[in-house]
Amino acid sequence: MKPKLTLKQIARELDVSVSTVSKALRDSPEISDDTRQKIQAFAKLYNYKPNNIALSLKNRRTKTIGLVLPEIVHDFFATVISGVEEVANKRGYNVLICLSNNSFDREVINLEMLANGSIDGFILSVAKETQQKGDYHHLEEVISQGMPVVMVDRVVNDIICDKVIIDDSDGARDAVQQLIDNGCRKIAIITTVDYISVGKLRTEGYLRALRNNDLEAEEDLILKIEDVENSHEEIAEFLSEREVDGIFAVNEQFATSAVKAVISQGLSVPDDVLVFSFSDGELSRRFIPSLSTVNQHGAEMGAKAADLLLDRIEKTTTDEKFQTAIVKTSLIERESTQKRKTLTV
Amino acid sequence: MKPKLTLKQIARELDVSVSTVSKALRDSPEISDDTRQKIQAFAKLYNYKPNNIALSLKNRRTKTIGLVLPEIVHDFFATVISGVEEVANKRGYNVLICLSNNSFDREVINLEMLANGSIDGFILSVAKETQQKGDYHHLEEVISQGMPVVMVDRVVNDIICDKVIIDDSDGARDAVQQLIDNGCRKIAIITTVDYISVGKLRTEGYLRALRNNDLEAEEDLILKIEDVENSHEEIAEFLSEREVDGIFAVNEQFATSAVKAVISQGLSVPDDVLVFSFSDGELSRRFIPSLSTVNQHGAEMGAKAADLLLDRIEKTTTDEKFQTAIVKTSLIERESTQKRKTLTV
Repeated sequence: MKPKLTLKQIARELDVSVSTVSKALRDSPEISDDTRQKIQAFAKLYNYKPNNIALSLKNRRTKTIGLVLPEIVHDFFATVISGVEEVANKRGYNVLICLSNNSFDREVINLEMLANGSIDGFILSVAKETQQKGDYHHLEEVISQGMPVVMVDRVVNDIICDKVIIDDSDGARDAVQQLIDNGCRKIAIITTVDYISVGKLRTEGYLRALRNNDLEAEEDLILKIEDVENSHEEIAEFLSEREVDGIFAVNEQFATSAVKAVISQGLSVPDDVLVFSFSDGELSRRFIPSLSTVNQHGAEMGAKAADLLLDRIEKTTTDEKFQTAIVKTSLIERESTQKRKTLTV
Repeated sequence: MKPKLTLKQIARELDVSVSTVSKALRDSPEISDDTRQKIQAFAKLYNYKPNNIALSLKNRRTKTIGLVLPEIVHDFFATVISGVEEVANKRGYNVLICLSNNSFDREVINLEMLANGSIDGFILSVAKETQQKGDYHHLEEVISQGMPVVMVDRVVNDIICDKVIIDDSDGARDAVQQLIDNGCRKIAIITTVDYISVGKLRTEGYLRALRNNDLEAEEDLILKIEDVENSHEEIAEFLSEREVDGIFAVNEQFATSAVKAVISQGLSVPDDVLVFSFSDGELSRRFIPSLSTVNQHGAEMGAKAADLLLDRIEKTTTDEKFQTAIVKTSLIERESTQKRKTLTV
């Protein structure tokens, strides 16, 4: 038996993208006749077998679920994993984790690999690049073949499946309200570009809190970061040119960069500027000053996603309708928003 | 076709451990005749098929490798993953990640699942509990069946396979030497219990540096942490009872706890006490003061492990002998070991 040909190998051989191969093999009208025929002929020649998920699902249970995540360098997804593992293991399932590294192609390849008989269903958080492209054919395909899928955190509204999200917008609103209650009047937000769904929602929450308190939303106080890895200098420059008394950052990385920038201006957090973060990771807990943050309850989200998935797989739910479970955020107040006198340092 | 019976289900059904089932099915003399017969009869009754790795390896290539890690909450293993993924993807392989959560049973179950035809070989870092037990039958078995295996970071000397390690002891010695060069004379070490191989090696390096400089090693200045998750109070108490001018911590978590403890005593890092950490993660980089640390080059270790594994799988290496690749550590000096005048804060 020859080694199995993969989508990626076909793509490389014919010098087209993985997505093009994937679509051509499914007769997608998005792909030109010419390209489609070429790819199908090549696949036939080399005896490429696309997944037959429906068949494999019918014939066996692997007692394994897949978890496809965009990244794990940030604590949040590590907590999601722990929640998924806890529930899955308790219910007798193994977990296989694949990372897309926020790449669309890798996400497509991961789904192809996992769907090929290794798992009974999967939990997915969409890659940044996939959200940017808005191309979800790989998801639609596995779902249409009967594979149970649950989306978690970075979800796609148009895809019909069970979902677990948090109230990103409300969490952000609550955090900004807390800054306002603590006396802030000029509050900057450090957020992501709009195509990241959670960044967009958190920005909406920020604007809502300002409106609720009759504070004006100033375009000039909104920083949208595209290049997360190199955001440190961008944040420092942004803050050096503005006078603010409060900062709301949509993740821990942005928040710690903001604190460093404030301190390097000779100012103090929290005496001069209060800082509220989002996502309760090790960085927030261990930082000096420790960071007030919106707790995303990643483990709870992961656990809920695993329960929804396993209920589908085991058909213990007779409910045909898909549900979107919303995990409530909560605020954790630490040193970065408290007056100095209450600091232990 | 009935759902496949797993080791775990057999173990639960017969009220024995996963390890006992695994050994009994392989006729291990460690298991009593009675138990062995009972387990084998049960497995036969329910048509349990143990892996036939040799067969599956002969017949197909999955173009997928497995990566079994003890945990991912710490940055180090996240960097190992990134290195493995980079090389594997470049060479046309997918990566499936499984976490043992430092549990021996989960490690056994993960190996069983992965070895069952899903992968061509795997990279493993041993679970804490496995090191504690010293039970490696699951590893020996897959290796004896011809599955290529590479161990990374937390390796087992007695297992014969390719390995990738760092010079833990030398890295620790260099860090402590740096503390001595910067004027420290009373240096505490915060380390793990000895059965964690890397903790033991780093402690050795610490002792070596003291000896090299004719400084006395004081038992009283060595703190060995068993319960990592709740180490914060233990570290604070330890430091409150001792007067030191330097601290070497074997990971970032211990290091940040140490800095907090020093500050809460009204002292300053680095003015009164210098702190050197191990492992270059986000916490070290973003902490205030930023932490001097021994860079473990996790990505490089992962990349090297992937190359060794894929060379075995593709038999591009004709070298029958297994090798242990040693990735050199390097020191990164940051604020926590520099005199205040050079601080930017």
